[in-house]
Amino acid sequence: MIIDLRSDTLTKPTPEMLQAMMQAEVGDDVYKEDPTVNKLEEHIAHLFGMDAALYFPTGSMTNQAAIKIHTQPGEQLIADKYAHVYNYEGGGVSFNSGVSCKLVDGHRGMITAEQVEENINPPDFYHSPLTSLVCLENTTNKGGGACYDFREIVKIRKVCDEHGLGLHLDGARLWNALVATDESPKDYGEVFDTISVCLSKGLGAPMGSVLVGKQKFMDKAMRVRKVLGGGMRQVGFMAAAGIYALEHHWQRMAEDHRKAQELATALAAHAKVALVEPVETNILIFKLRPEVDELKFIQQLKEKQIFISALGKGKLRMVTHYDYTDAMHAHLLDLLSSKNL
Amino acid sequence: MIIDLRSDTLTKPTPEMLQAMMQAEVGDDVYKEDPTVNKLEEHIAHLFGMDAALYFPTGSMTNQAAIKIHTQPGEQLIADKYAHVYNYEGGGVSFNSGVSCKLVDGHRGMITAEQVEENINPPDFYHSPLTSLVCLENTTNKGGGACYDFREIVKIRKVCDEHGLGLHLDGARLWNALVATDESPKDYGEVFDTISVCLSKGLGAPMGSVLVGKQKFMDKAMRVRKVLGGGMRQVGFMAAAGIYALEHHWQRMAEDHRKAQELATALAAHAKVALVEPVETNILIFKLRPEVDELKFIQQLKEKQIFISALGKGKLRMVTHYDYTDAMHAHLLDLLSSKNL
Amino acid sequence: MIIDLRSDTLTKPTPEMLQAMMQAEVGDDVYKEDPTVNKLEEHIAHLFGMDAALYFPTGSMTNQAAIKIHTQPGEQLIADKYAHVYNYEGGGVSFNSGVSCKLVDGHRGMITAEQVEENINPPDFYHSPLTSLVCLENTTNKGGGACYDFREIVKIRKVCDEHGLGLHLDGARLWNALVATDESPKDYGEVFDTISVCLSKGLGAPMGSVLVGKQKFMDKAMRVRKVLGGGMRQVGFMAAAGIYALEHHWQRMAEDHRKAQELATALAAHAKVALVEPVETNILIFKLRPEVDELKFIQQLKEKQIFISALGKGKLRMVTHYDYTDAMHAHLLDLLSSKNL
Amino acid sequence: MIIDLRSDTLTKPTPEMLQAMMQAEVGDDVYKEDPTVNKLEEHIAHLFGMDAALYFPTGSMTNQAAIKIHTQPGEQLIADKYAHVYNYEGGGVSFNSGVSCKLVDGHRGMITAEQVEENINPPDFYHSPLTSLVCLENTTNKGGGACYDFREIVKIRKVCDEHGLGLHLDGARLWNALVATDESPKDYGEVFDTISVCLSKGLGAPMGSVLVGKQKFMDKAMRVRKVLGGGMRQVGFMAAAGIYALEHHWQRMAEDHRKAQELATALAAHAKVALVEPVETNILIFKLRPEVDELKFIQQLKEKQIFISALGKGKLRMVTHYDYTDAMHAHLLDLLSSKNL
Repeated sequence: MIIDLRSDTLTKPTPEMLQAMMQAEVGDDVYKEDPTVNKLEEHIAHLFGMDAALYFPTGSMTNQAAIKIHTQPGEQLIADKYAHVYNYEGGGVSFNSGVSCKLVDGHRGMITAEQVEENINPPDFYHSPLTSLVCLENTTNKGGGACYDFREIVKIRKVCDEHGLGLHLDGARLWNALVATDESPKDYGEVFDTISVCLSKGLGAPMGSVLVGKQKFMDKAMRVRKVLGGGMRQVGFMAAAGIYALEHHWQRMAEDHRKAQELATALAAHAKVALVEPVETNILIFKLRPEVDELKFIQQLKEKQIFISALGKGKLRMVTHYDYTDAMHAHLLDLLSSKNL
Repeated sequence: MIIDLRSDTLTKPTPEMLQAMMQAEVGDDVYKEDPTVNKLEEHIAHLFGMDAALYFPTGSMTNQAAIKIHTQPGEQLIADKYAHVYNYEGGGVSFNSGVSCKLVDGHRGMITAEQVEENINPPDFYHSPLTSLVCLENTTNKGGGACYDFREIVKIRKVCDEHGLGLHLDGARLWNALVATDESPKDYGEVFDTISVCLSKGLGAPMGSVLVGKQKFMDKAMRVRKVLGGGMRQVGFMAAAGIYALEHHWQRMAEDHRKAQELATALAAHAKVALVEPVETNILIFKLRPEVDELKFIQQLKEKQIFISALGKGKLRMVTHYDYTDAMHAHLLDLLSSKNL
Repeated sequence: MIIDLRSDTLTKPTPEMLQAMMQAEVGDDVYKEDPTVNKLEEHIAHLFGMDAALYFPTGSMTNQAAIKIHTQPGEQLIADKYAHVYNYEGGGVSFNSGVSCKLVDGHRGMITAEQVEENINPPDFYHSPLTSLVCLENTTNKGGGACYDFREIVKIRKVCDEHGLGLHLDGARLWNALVATDESPKDYGEVFDTISVCLSKGLGAPMGSVLVGKQKFMDKAMRVRKVLGGGMRQVGFMAAAGIYALEHHWQRMAEDHRKAQELATALAAHAKVALVEPVETNILIFKLRPEVDELKFIQQLKEKQIFISALGKGKLRMVTHYDYTDAMHAHLLDLLSSKNL
Repeated sequence: MIIDLRSDTLTKPTPEMLQAMMQAEVGDDVYKEDPTVNKLEEHIAHLFGMDAALYFPTGSMTNQAAIKIHTQPGEQLIADKYAHVYNYEGGGVSFNSGVSCKLVDGHRGMITAEQVEENINPPDFYHSPLTSLVCLENTTNKGGGACYDFREIVKIRKVCDEHGLGLHLDGARLWNALVATDESPKDYGEVFDTISVCLSKGLGAPMGSVLVGKQKFMDKAMRVRKVLGGGMRQVGFMAAAGIYALEHHWQRMAEDHRKAQELATALAAHAKVALVEPVETNILIFKLRPEVDELKFIQQLKEKQIFISALGKGKLRMVTHYDYTDAMHAHLLDLLSSKNL
């Protein structure tokens, strides 16, 4: 039994999802003639109560496209220091958009309206970049799957309005946040200008991400997707997996969250573990005691066919997901409570 | 019977291809753990006798990535005035790479070694951009599916070597050229630094393109694919279609070429047609007589469920492909020889 | 006696200009506190009847800043194939703005309204770059100092208005055109959105260029100048030379034009010369007979202390200017009519 | 008596400097024929014991050019959070080079070798930008004119060598550091790859900055200067001021430093002042007591014809310089010790 907790991107389609994929009606999406892609886009736009949606091959591309849509070269965006767009998208903010990041020292990847306001450059002071966008992430990846307090987001929206800033959400794992907080996509659709959501993480589709937003921003999305090389052909096969996943894999994420909680409890009781960060969704970050050798610990797990990620600076990460079964969970809990680790 | 000759990108998988897709073994390609993607990459690298290959979501992205790999901002590439990379990739050469194009007035989208040499800027004259790359296209899209004389390519390689220029091939329809000229991929692998090939055009896979090249260029490909947002997850489903297509749909392109030839003959005899460009592969470009109303002509075809493309400046285009069946062909030939058009 | 006709950029200040420079009242122009720079900017804005002007270190930077102001990355500008912005600004259009050039095959560096219209990409066809700017050059440099027919410019303005395009003038030698055609700067100020004019060419100031334009474009100019590194300090010394030159060196350009005409007549009669392009201002382009060795010809001139430029493809160029004195002119005319060359 | 301590960029040439400017021998620097510019470049290269130097219109452009020379788009540089290149160059790092900044929380604008090492991204982890450059600033501007311990720089060089990183110095006020620490330019020339030095700050020239470096980097400098629009014509007038300043204004900076120290002492004793940062060179940063209204304080100074800068977050800045005379200094010290402020 291989237990792979490195990421929720590792999931493979279930037989039922595969069936849905293979029965998809497809067309050439470059001509916007793929009915399944069109259906997915309409479905997501409707879900968020927003004007339009566009399918992309990856979540990095939806984020990068949104940043390009909101900014001009030389401008600056505000984000948490842990932001995926700054840390894990290959330097794309500067490469694709010529934009710099003002990184804020937030809490578990989340920033406050007050911090946003403090970090806006004076618009008339032309020596510093013009601030034009705020990017939030929910749940936070490097922040350990933490969920924003929606009231803080509403305050951030207000600051953005007062200062003429765009507001984008990197919602790669927004589905998890919605399940964990019992909020509605429409709440988010009301406060953000653009939102990117992934179909390939907790939802378990093989690939694909969707950018959803207000019309005036989405009007530019096709050109940006084209120039980045994201316009695919009969990709309805993949979109079909997304449609299936929204129906069948979304609400069950509560299972992943529960398992992550239980793992956290087990880890907290483990002799080698110094600290377990609070678990809100499906990401669990913990630290070993200083005397424990991190590489050796990971190696021991590997020998037991258990795979987790090292985040650097002594942090280790587990991510629960659809393919992390009840049997695996029982097995891992057993192991954690035993002396065998 | 709908006859769609707008593009060979419109093809849908056959049941057999779909079967191959459905049975694909997949993994997370961002971790390079998708065995089917890996297999496709190895297969293509081997086919061309080149060092490495990388799967991308689209042909635009493979070309754009290659241009980025070969150049630095401010530099210049040489290409034919019809080049897809200049005309149909959303301005990506300048957007993604900060590079300008020196367009050459070639023949049917093809340029000569002499033209390349004439258009290299003097490297010490820093007022003009530094020329660093030559991009060829084979077959040519806007040039009507024409195939290069391979000896001219060898001469161009020599010019590139003498002047320290990279040489990239936009081989979106190279498969067609290879069938039409009976050349081998290895010939091309020997003269080019990088080659992009598409799986979604004549080969009929739903999506995907592969960049294949020498190690020193491919070393940079993963980073460039990442920053453009092209790193997908369990995309082996799509790669499987590519593997299937290379085995089953490649050599049969001769059929598409024969049909295009026969259409050309029929069109040349048609009263409304002024000119048919020579047909070498699956693209057929023709012009109507000045007195014939182009839009009306296209509309008449549409009413008969036949779809073709207008290229501008009076040029019309038909592209034959896998989904253009023998029955459709017989029907269209009948129509063209009748008085009903 | 050294006769340097390579360029009108070679002029050195007269004692009177130097006097004006050294008496200039200066301040820190980054704070907009240099009274002489401010005065020059106001003077030029007033001369053209436009809203605002901004001083730059070079003409390349004024053009590049204007292009940046008018465009977004990925877009396309239309210009003549000889355009300085494409050929001689180091690839800056793509480097600084991520913009591509649609080059038109005009006449002596000048394009028509009809050509502009033909080269606008369809705005809804997102595969091709969005056309957003037309750049004209007057007089044309590589076109041999030719002057636009102002009525054609008015027609181009109309096309730009109909298609929502910006219209920028590279007026590096507009001063020459105005003298040659007896037109007024205000005429130009009415039809263009932005105009760049140089103080360092025919006017003879040591350096500097000014971008003048409508408010909504100039609002962005300070930020663009800053990011390109063009915000200087007590540069009023140089601006003073510009103010002096506009008063004392402008109208006398008619002298340079007359001398260029007389050189053209002499060259046309010369045995080694095959062709002299029409001379309208201070630039004179000619070709040697095929049997004459170009490098040897230039060498012979060099030995006589006469310096001219080779433009490539057999074209030679002479540029008359303030430092090309009557004595030099008499000497050169003598030489051209003698058998000594 | 106007006392302007906002910046040392505000200085105006002395009559003697003006005399030197007026007598400069000039030429067209675009052709590299300005003997005075050439002389300045050779002088500075020699001073630092480096291979070559190039004159630029501004210090922002020398820094931006250096960053472009060292990096490729998508890469990352490491700098202190106060770095001028990140904070005050209009977002140029991202705009001009497509590069992001990894900002380090240093001490008074200075970072350690250990911090550099910690902030290098793993080169094989292609999700994060490739780290390729370290930028130091000496003296630090926003850090209050602090001077690096040269031994720390040597350690940073070692880290750069081990990781294949370039090392650039923003030496806008390096002249001050050299005077304050009694170090030699050659020490710096040995450890850095490129250094930018300003002639227009403490040295008192009206404009101009020089990039000096190793040949392999400087080889690219002319092209980068061209594409940014920094190639000027008879700019030897300005270069002459730089040559003069290096001879006559450099060592006397010790005066400016002494005055800044004395102002610091006076401020520290002032009832309204909460904190004065240590003064090492000519920059003095202080904070008012919480109960004092910052804007009102600045206004009171203005009414007395004394001008200083607000840096934000309650910090105020004074910069001493050549034009801040002994008389002004006595006057200001008097004022600070009186009850009139």
